[in-house]
Amino acid sequence: MSREVEFFFDFSSPYGYLAACRLSAWQGGPDCRFLWRPILLGAVFKITGQKPLAMVPFKGDYMLHDVARSARRLGVSWQMPANFPFPAVAASRAFYWADDQDPAKAVRFARACYRQAFGEGADITAPESLAPLADEAGLDAAALAAACQDQVYKDRLRAACDQAIEREIFGSPTFVVDGERFWGFDRMDDLAAWIESGGW
Amino acid sequence: MSREVEFFFDFSSPYGYLAACRLSAWQGGPDCRFLWRPILLGAVFKITGQKPLAMVPFKGDYMLHDVARSARRLGVSWQMPANFPFPAVAASRAFYWADDQDPAKAVRFARACYRQAFGEGADITAPESLAPLADEAGLDAAALAAACQDQVYKDRLRAACDQAIEREIFGSPTFVVDGERFWGFDRMDDLAAWIESGGW
Repeated sequence: MSREVEFFFDFSSPYGYLAACRLSAWQGGPDCRFLWRPILLGAVFKITGQKPLAMVPFKGDYMLHDVARSARRLGVSWQMPANFPFPAVAASRAFYWADDQDPAKAVRFARACYRQAFGEGADITAPESLAPLADEAGLDAAALAAACQDQVYKDRLRAACDQAIEREIFGSPTFVVDGERFWGFDRMDDLAAWIESGGW
Repeated sequence: MSREVEFFFDFSSPYGYLAACRLSAWQGGPDCRFLWRPILLGAVFKITGQKPLAMVPFKGDYMLHDVARSARRLGVSWQMPANFPFPAVAASRAFYWADDQDPAKAVRFARACYRQAFGEGADITAPESLAPLADEAGLDAAALAAACQDQVYKDRLRAACDQAIEREIFGSPTFVVDGERFWGFDRMDDLAAWIESGGW
């Protein structure tokens, strides 16, 4: 039986980036299917009253240090984009368009976005900046850029955020399997143990 | 060469309890010495603007679920005290008094406090409630209760909190080794890897 694991993330989340990197090496086993679900945490924070990590005294500086340290441990490149925290609206809408074309290509596109933003520190906010990433994923770059302004994908992203809020997703990354939420890059060991053991 | 690992925690922190439980089974190796340092996170939150986890929508409910799940995985008992979140002033002052008598007994006392609060769900806010825990740790219960009102230990606890703030400790548990902070029960694997490898 195939098992679905939902992977909620914000394209502007450093820990989402690290989680995506770890998902390159670990896929949960042959029966596992990860469903990538970009959301905008800003919408969630309006409800929970949280602030972006970077804006919390002490915690913001710790996060910068910790993400770099975690990236070194994972062996992945890390570069904070100058425009952080940035709005990830375009990449998120584009993802849902890509997902309608081909879910595997959408994941490739998502990985490319994350690598561009946090592996290379580039600005991925403008729809035009996504063109080479669409190319890389084997997607039609012009159609992807157009989708960023398409009401259908505006609505799709809004619905994804609303659903995440309904399900009380409050951070990035959050994984959901068997109705269990696992919040945080640092809970991927728990997630792996849960998937492997069937829970406890 | 002996290595010191500082363990900052709040006696009213569920994840601090889990960390203390994990420290029962794992001590970082023969060269490691853990220095237990209770603090009051309320003082830190005034500066960082954070709210206690339990008061954050979504996150509070998740925490309740996650702590219970993590306790099951660790194989330790878990019971949320009815008075949570409670002020941990008495236990914290008593700890520093106990630490002056005998650091090993102070750790035994701290473990007893945590077990009483989160293993059994009991109220440990009143100095009198600490008497059996002092007994259990081999400490003078009457002297320990008196220390809770002693200006020396009021000042000692305040200084510990001030120092934690100076060092930008913002959550419980936080471990510090080699000048590196590791925040969170879920970062104890990172801490262990850091201690074992000497860092990366």
